[in-house]
Amino acid sequence: MLVNNKPYQTIWYENDQVYFIQQNDLPFYFKIKHTSDFRILRDAIITMDIRGAGAIGVAAAWALALAVRESEKKADPAIIDYAFNEIRATRPTAYDLFHATDFVYKRSSSFSEALKAALYIQQKNIDDARAIAGHGESLITQNSRILTHCNAGWLAFADWGSALATIYLAARNGKKPFVYVDETRPRLQGARLTAWELQNEKIDFKIISDNAAAYFMSKGAIDLVITGADRIAMNGDVANKIGTLQKALAAKYYGIPFYVAAPLSTFDPSCEKGCEITIELRSEDEVLYVEGEDIAGTKHRIRIATPGAEALNPAFDISPSELIHGIITPKGIIRAKHQEILSILE
Amino acid sequence: MLVNNKPYQTIWYENDQVYFIQQNDLPFYFKIKHTSDFRILRDAIITMDIRGAGAIGVAAAWALALAVRESEKKADPAIIDYAFNEIRATRPTAYDLFHATDFVYKRSSSFSEALKAALYIQQKNIDDARAIAGHGESLITQNSRILTHCNAGWLAFADWGSALATIYLAARNGKKPFVYVDETRPRLQGARLTAWELQNEKIDFKIISDNAAAYFMSKGAIDLVITGADRIAMNGDVANKIGTLQKALAAKYYGIPFYVAAPLSTFDPSCEKGCEITIELRSEDEVLYVEGEDIAGTKHRIRIATPGAEALNPAFDISPSELIHGIITPKGIIRAKHQEILSILE
Repeated sequence: MLVNNKPYQTIWYENDQVYFIQQNDLPFYFKIKHTSDFRILRDAIITMDIRGAGAIGVAAAWALALAVRESEKKADPAIIDYAFNEIRATRPTAYDLFHATDFVYKRSSSFSEALKAALYIQQKNIDDARAIAGHGESLITQNSRILTHCNAGWLAFADWGSALATIYLAARNGKKPFVYVDETRPRLQGARLTAWELQNEKIDFKIISDNAAAYFMSKGAIDLVITGADRIAMNGDVANKIGTLQKALAAKYYGIPFYVAAPLSTFDPSCEKGCEITIELRSEDEVLYVEGEDIAGTKHRIRIATPGAEALNPAFDISPSELIHGIITPKGIIRAKHQEILSILE
Repeated sequence: MLVNNKPYQTIWYENDQVYFIQQNDLPFYFKIKHTSDFRILRDAIITMDIRGAGAIGVAAAWALALAVRESEKKADPAIIDYAFNEIRATRPTAYDLFHATDFVYKRSSSFSEALKAALYIQQKNIDDARAIAGHGESLITQNSRILTHCNAGWLAFADWGSALATIYLAARNGKKPFVYVDETRPRLQGARLTAWELQNEKIDFKIISDNAAAYFMSKGAIDLVITGADRIAMNGDVANKIGTLQKALAAKYYGIPFYVAAPLSTFDPSCEKGCEITIELRSEDEVLYVEGEDIAGTKHRIRIATPGAEALNPAFDISPSELIHGIITPKGIIRAKHQEILSILE
């Protein structure tokens, strides 16, 4: 998608290197990093320079492919298993990570095969996102007012995104959507990444505090909620960024359709119910401190909470399937029900 | 209540002056300001140096009493009406403001009478808070885990508070409550004021992002929700800090009792339903910027959102009465129903 009117992808392979946008520098700086070391990609997933279920999956695929190349060069087969385990240990919740590393690992007997596998994961991620956009766009009517939470945009994929992809396509089709952007505490992916994406795509939006979404629903100001997903259980329960559950509950109460958009790589066939999904608990510092720029453009990290106070910081929650109107997949929009999920995974 | 083990009130009258804690400096600095000018109190309400429905009411009473004194000194009766209108124009949602200014205005024929009226409002506010504590404490059992939103503590009253008052009394009775403190974006009254109060009272707590409350409810980690209120309609609908509605909806879904604590001065007899309550829309900058201290103790105001992006910032929302388990009042705990509200207001 566009950055200052120039097309970019979140991550790509070029000149034997993996290039990626450093998302922790956004929205204040737009920086690209490149590497041929899987450890750099592993660390970028840990620090969330690369984040979002889809982008994590693609980065993990590239990381493992780079490890296969290193293993060949050093004639040390142990590197592949080491990298496989290291990459999978970066984040516990998003299923795309496990799907992508499994896929490349099965094709790790040579670098040329692993490279092909990673390229496939990358292209499949983009194609899936584009297909999601095509199906989800039908839910958006002229001047639809859509709430989204966190960032399920192109920065969370290799390109296009999931929830935001539907909005991008609707906008290109002249529907003039308006987006309420939950700021998404603690890491503010809404205020920093979703807002930045929408601004670059020239889509009309306003940031709101996470607290304000139900208020706008109660006023009849929101027509539709679309979020992404980090892992979907076979019964249709959805793990997504912390706070999604409160939006799903509010949408149910006010009779507003709540949709989740995700590629098939987000569905976990081994997971029957949401309660089986491991929820990542992150550092309390993400709640207690924030980063940003003062009026002179100088970056600061400041404490915003009472000195000495502690915080709890679960990064995801589970929205029960009964709250979900539908799941927008590359194969079409399905209900969050076991049979329908099974049928698209076949 | 206690600040560094020394008892304080939020606002008080001494040496012909009104003293108050400057809440915008908390939690990093504890500063007291004093004034004999109603304009300073008016501005303190506008800037939220004095905030919280009860404290706003008490400050407004003092402001009008100071205006009556000024009017006597300058032999200018117009000052009283001017001050009355200015004070009431500070904030639109909290009903205590209108209740207190009406009360003092009716007793503004002399300063001695107005002073008595303001002293009455101050003492009544404290007595009500203490009575709320007595009734609400019965809801808290040994090791209860309680969620609260925003700050309904002693800083929101002249002393004690409403929601937090029940917790303070339970703690003094040896019940060892644990408090989940919603940070309460955008102004972070939870992370800054409630956390600071609980720390000073040595009560066990953790701050969470507003997004995380439903997660902890879904895990069975929250026994009870208690919040304050800014205005209560006669049908039991409750206006309170933005985000309260999302907690009420989540509590209903998970079968967790949701209580609101408030003095009678928060009930608006002229307001039949919540939808009639004016919701204050505040500056978008409260969402886009935050203040805090860097590691060296230097204060900064930083932008946390995409440059150029705009925000919407409603300060309150309405929780429908059907979501509210009960209202803790100085006269006892009632259901959020018209007849029960009528009976305690008589």
